Amino acid sequence: MLLKNNIPIGYVLGKVRHDSALVAIYAVVITILHEWKIFSFDIPIGGVPAILGTVISLLLAFRSNQAYDRWWEARIVWGSIVNDSRSFARQVITFVGNLYEAGACGALKERLIKRQIAWNYALTKSLRKQDPYEDIKRFLSTSELEFVKAYDNVPNALLKLQGMDIHRATADGLINQFQQIEMERTLTKLTDAMGKCERIKNTVFPETYTLYIRLAIYLFITVLPFSLFGLFGYVSIPLIIAIGTLFLLIEKMAVHLQDPFENKPTDTPMSTISAKIERDLLQMWLDDKVDSSRTEVNEENKDVFYIL
Amino acid sequence: MLLKNNIPIGYVLGKVRHDSALVAIYAVVITILHEWKIFSFDIPIGGVPAILGTVISLLLAFRSNQAYDRWWEARIVWGSIVNDSRSFARQVITFVGNLYEAGACGALKERLIKRQIAWNYALTKSLRKQDPYEDIKRFLSTSELEFVKAYDNVPNALLKLQGMDIHRATADGLINQFQQIEMERTLTKLTDAMGKCERIKNTVFPETYTLYIRLAIYLFITVLPFSLFGLFGYVSIPLIIAIGTLFLLIEKMAVHLQDPFENKPTDTPMSTISAKIERDLLQMWLDDKVDSSRTEVNEENKDVFYIL
Amino acid sequence: MLLKNNIPIGYVLGKVRHDSALVAIYAVVITILHEWKIFSFDIPIGGVPAILGTVISLLLAFRSNQAYDRWWEARIVWGSIVNDSRSFARQVITFVGNLYEAGACGALKERLIKRQIAWNYALTKSLRKQDPYEDIKRFLSTSELEFVKAYDNVPNALLKLQGMDIHRATADGLINQFQQIEMERTLTKLTDAMGKCERIKNTVFPETYTLYIRLAIYLFITVLPFSLFGLFGYVSIPLIIAIGTLFLLIEKMAVHLQDPFENKPTDTPMSTISAKIERDLLQMWLDDKVDSSRTEVNEENKDVFYIL
Amino acid sequence: MLLKNNIPIGYVLGKVRHDSALVAIYAVVITILHEWKIFSFDIPIGGVPAILGTVISLLLAFRSNQAYDRWWEARIVWGSIVNDSRSFARQVITFVGNLYEAGACGALKERLIKRQIAWNYALTKSLRKQDPYEDIKRFLSTSELEFVKAYDNVPNALLKLQGMDIHRATADGLINQFQQIEMERTLTKLTDAMGKCERIKNTVFPETYTLYIRLAIYLFITVLPFSLFGLFGYVSIPLIIAIGTLFLLIEKMAVHLQDPFENKPTDTPMSTISAKIERDLLQMWLDDKVDSSRTEVNEENKDVFYIL
Amino acid sequence: MLLKNNIPIGYVLGKVRHDSALVAIYAVVITILHEWKIFSFDIPIGGVPAILGTVISLLLAFRSNQAYDRWWEARIVWGSIVNDSRSFARQVITFVGNLYEAGACGALKERLIKRQIAWNYALTKSLRKQDPYEDIKRFLSTSELEFVKAYDNVPNALLKLQGMDIHRATADGLINQFQQIEMERTLTKLTDAMGKCERIKNTVFPETYTLYIRLAIYLFITVLPFSLFGLFGYVSIPLIIAIGTLFLLIEKMAVHLQDPFENKPTDTPMSTISAKIERDLLQMWLDDKVDSSRTEVNEENKDVFYIL
Repeated sequence: MLLKNNIPIGYVLGKVRHDSALVAIYAVVITILHEWKIFSFDIPIGGVPAILGTVISLLLAFRSNQAYDRWWEARIVWGSIVNDSRSFARQVITFVGNLYEAGACGALKERLIKRQIAWNYALTKSLRKQDPYEDIKRFLSTSELEFVKAYDNVPNALLKLQGMDIHRATADGLINQFQQIEMERTLTKLTDAMGKCERIKNTVFPETYTLYIRLAIYLFITVLPFSLFGLFGYVSIPLIIAIGTLFLLIEKMAVHLQDPFENKPTDTPMSTISAKIERDLLQMWLDDKVDSSRTEVNEENKDVFYIL
Repeated sequence: MLLKNNIPIGYVLGKVRHDSALVAIYAVVITILHEWKIFSFDIPIGGVPAILGTVISLLLAFRSNQAYDRWWEARIVWGSIVNDSRSFARQVITFVGNLYEAGACGALKERLIKRQIAWNYALTKSLRKQDPYEDIKRFLSTSELEFVKAYDNVPNALLKLQGMDIHRATADGLINQFQQIEMERTLTKLTDAMGKCERIKNTVFPETYTLYIRLAIYLFITVLPFSLFGLFGYVSIPLIIAIGTLFLLIEKMAVHLQDPFENKPTDTPMSTISAKIERDLLQMWLDDKVDSSRTEVNEENKDVFYIL
Repeated sequence: MLLKNNIPIGYVLGKVRHDSALVAIYAVVITILHEWKIFSFDIPIGGVPAILGTVISLLLAFRSNQAYDRWWEARIVWGSIVNDSRSFARQVITFVGNLYEAGACGALKERLIKRQIAWNYALTKSLRKQDPYEDIKRFLSTSELEFVKAYDNVPNALLKLQGMDIHRATADGLINQFQQIEMERTLTKLTDAMGKCERIKNTVFPETYTLYIRLAIYLFITVLPFSLFGLFGYVSIPLIIAIGTLFLLIEKMAVHLQDPFENKPTDTPMSTISAKIERDLLQMWLDDKVDSSRTEVNEENKDVFYIL
Repeated sequence: MLLKNNIPIGYVLGKVRHDSALVAIYAVVITILHEWKIFSFDIPIGGVPAILGTVISLLLAFRSNQAYDRWWEARIVWGSIVNDSRSFARQVITFVGNLYEAGACGALKERLIKRQIAWNYALTKSLRKQDPYEDIKRFLSTSELEFVKAYDNVPNALLKLQGMDIHRATADGLINQFQQIEMERTLTKLTDAMGKCERIKNTVFPETYTLYIRLAIYLFITVLPFSLFGLFGYVSIPLIIAIGTLFLLIEKMAVHLQDPFENKPTDTPMSTISAKIERDLLQMWLDDKVDSSRTEVNEENKDVFYIL
Repeated sequence: MLLKNNIPIGYVLGKVRHDSALVAIYAVVITILHEWKIFSFDIPIGGVPAILGTVISLLLAFRSNQAYDRWWEARIVWGSIVNDSRSFARQVITFVGNLYEAGACGALKERLIKRQIAWNYALTKSLRKQDPYEDIKRFLSTSELEFVKAYDNVPNALLKLQGMDIHRATADGLINQFQQIEMERTLTKLTDAMGKCERIKNTVFPETYTLYIRLAIYLFITVLPFSLFGLFGYVSIPLIIAIGTLFLLIEKMAVHLQDPFENKPTDTPMSTISAKIERDLLQMWLDDKVDSSRTEVNEENKDVFYIL
């Protein structure tokens, strides 16, 4: 299962169509003026355009690298959220246990796992500046929902609820002190992941670089026709449009990649990942519920099940 | 022992043969048209082709770096799987121990180690979208096999089994609480490794970059003959084919490296690594079994064995 | 909420206006001398300017990358401060607890959380070489304020106070030994973050690189007119100004990014981040206070609240 | 003490002498044919050679970076082996202790430290595919030597012995449970280092890149004389040899750096590092032995020794 | 407080003055020969010099990046030493505590903190191959000084002393087992930092790269005059010197940065950092001493001090 199909070309192309149109009009006008001998002015292409081409290439390489790094880091963070969600669920299932309070244990496991699922959806929506309550109300009790509504930062509130629940469970003897600390560490990892997403979301990429690159590209496009029409005549029009659009496209792609939480086709597929985590965690939990009942019935058959 | 021979050149070359053929046909047609004076049109090579050459070179460098990084990260992840498998086996052998339950300890060790071996094969097959059951049934009991069949994600199910087994062992006093947490951490590392593989597998590299590069290469090949035939005549045909194919090959290589879990010759050698882990872990386990029996017999000779 | 609007273009442009003016004057003088035939000297642009252009481009790419890395690392460090502050607050709320000393627990929680908020403001001011006391006195008692005033390094003093408070709390039985170590580790992470900020603040970027780049740019600008006026006449004046200013701007941008704690528009938005941490932590704490009272009242309703 | 002198230039130069000779012959033949007017064909150097030069430069930069990263990572791994060996020895000396079993403690310390020294030598030899027994037999008892001989992977067997010894020591009360886990973690770090070395050793660098680069270099050398003899005559022969050899040397250097465990002059100095670890660890151990005896004698003088 | 002023330009310039002088002499001789018509030979600058310029630029970018990374890593390591020293001091102050042995605790704290200060100076001197005893004797007792003198590696000996002291303190009940392990971990971090410094110090940067770059630069300088004097006449002399010196300077800067522990102006400011650590740690310690006395007096006022 691929998490996302490719970014539709048409989508990205659409983003530069105004710029490309301007480039086309400019190229046509200048070339016609030249061909009708109204305006004539030649530049050897090995000079200014070549220097500008090198500068633009290096700026675009720098720009693309940084934008790609932000996009890839966003993906890595969500990958680690998948891992930590699974590890947290496994810890819940294998740490929580008290022979005398099977009921309380079961309820605790359900609360912790469902809240973790809710956390993923809440973070997704919160990063996209959308209302999270629709998605998370399936997994939370009414009182929990009310609790988190008081917070600006819903995922953080959920982590606090998790921490408080684990605290209580420790006090009630459902998990031991070392296990509390171990689960708390997983919560810390999730806090880190959340903070990393917020950092990428809230940090504006220094816009001045974009400005410099666009400046350089427009300067390049301005001088390019004068280097080409002497050699190509009307053929220079498509060439100018092709080269100009290529530069603009690469620059635009970087702009898209650098903000991976804006609900665009280039986004990190957070909803899909959250749904995948939901599937995995529910499977682990349901299975454990069944298994617990089965174990209760066949406690004497334990050895049969485990020994090879 | 090298884990993999080199990628056969013929294999990669085969991937670009259609493109190269098109380039060849185009070069021949254009050159003949020119030599027969049907069509004549010269471009100084220092101009458009040089600028495009610089742009393509930088795009290819960016592309190759990112693809290589994915490929190398995949290899690093599998390297860490080797390490964590060995460390887990060592933990199993040196942590599990209870003088009064030697039998239960031996059975537990066998289950944990064989399940770890199975996990590697399961992950391999699961990343390649192949049926894992053939490979893992050698290491699992029938009931375990049934258990994991209920899961979409087989390796994750195996990790859950490991966690549950360790949980039981803690309750039964075969390992202590600190050891449980330490082994649980190794399971968390394996969960992380699994998630990293899935991330690389499921994240499409932004295809638009490939598109831009191919666009730039085709534009370059389109204008190249006009710069060359004036200088080289028929000799320009092999030159165009050589330069065009070189660019196409570098781009194709990046496409191959970026998806390292697709069962291609450029793949991460997961099967070989899994077999190597199997060998190491079985050796550690068998040896421990022998050693345990020997120790039982010669308990009094312990000092002889260990003191230098 | 975006943490910062973009860097105003005018601000950056203002930084190079003297250099740009000099470039403009030079370009005008040289071109006029040439046009009036007083001085005539042509250089093919494909030669020295092209080589210098390549050198400058690569130096600027190196420079921009290193400066961006410093700026981005500063942002990452402050992102981790957000995470660790939240995790610390969660630890405070979920670790501190002793049925017999609810009052002492409440006071401890308040002290620890407020001191953590103060720490962020203190670090902000300390990195900007400003007086921190105005900001932090809201969160500290008079005696604490006196205590930290004796230190050169205020944030470090606050961390020591935190450690001493946790030490006392352990001795008094409000938290256990494992929890002490876990909270101590969070303090260590904050110490690390503080040290990283100081490293970036106090390490001068090797100024020689800046020198080399400026030398290369001025050499380039010196020879550029001789390559252009033969081709463009008076049109070469704006071209020289545009290309020269572009290079100077990119270089200046790097100089700005490399020192992210100097209270400039390109800075890491430390005050905004500190205010955000204050909001989150106070929300977590107030809510806990309310929750504690409520819990005290409805201790019997606990299950109602938590079970779904 | 520098760990290694420089790589002898002659050594590297020797590796390209066949290629350089071919380049020389080709350059001489082509130039003579041209000078004798037998063959005449000019290419402007700004065209095909310049484009190929840019492509080759970028490919070589990519190649050198990746090769250097492998080489530097190998060095980092061995640096961490030094650190972990020292930390392990310090843990052995400061953790192992039991007032009633001074003799057993001393023997245990000796075994653990000597085995760690042996591990370094064993890993060195094992990575170089050489027989490790000569080096390690000084540090191991006969029975240990026999034990490890049964293994394919000798360093892994030694780590297992360490783990088993620590396990026994825990059972015998020479170290406590937390210390066992802490030392086990150091063993895990050593397992990781070993696995990283194996990864670098066993992963073939994608040979296709080497192929592409050599292809591009040979294409470049093929067309270069045609661009030069028109300008330089016979002087072009040394120029072609110099430029061609320069490219070939850079490429060859990358090939050398990428495999740092092949017993070549460019290697990671594993034997030297192992000897250095041996010196440090023996010093720490001997000193501890002396110190232990001294302490036994002067137990009453302890305070004298430690208080300033 | 900036840790270091800038590297004096004159210093770096001084390093290339011999090379620059040679370049100048060569440029003058060749140009005069040409102007006097003794020797005449023109090369179009777009050809060989442009290709060599690109190759040199990329090699210099590779070289500068690697050298800068070494320099920056050295700075990061010393940054982490600052952090770990502070954290260690905080641990000493907040972990060590035993109501019945206030005297022993105070002495232990003093020994541990002073020894940590000594460690920084010892590492500084040891990396610079200087005698460390002058600097560290202020912080160590005579017996400790004698102890470390027996070691080749003084900082390692100090860490062993720390470990042994902590071991004794654990046995004497001044700290608990978990705290021992936590402090031991800080020692491990310091061991790692020390090992990283040694790695950077002792690993020769592959000198062949320097050789290739200088070869390319000299080849470039050799052909450059032939491309310039036809265009510039005597003006080409300063141009050749400027461009040649620029390349040599960039290369020399890399050579300087790559070895950051050689007591040169480009060095990591280890002495300054060590002094800063001394100031911070002594402040933390003195303050704790005062605070301890004060606390003893006002034990009943504790609440006054801490409650807001």
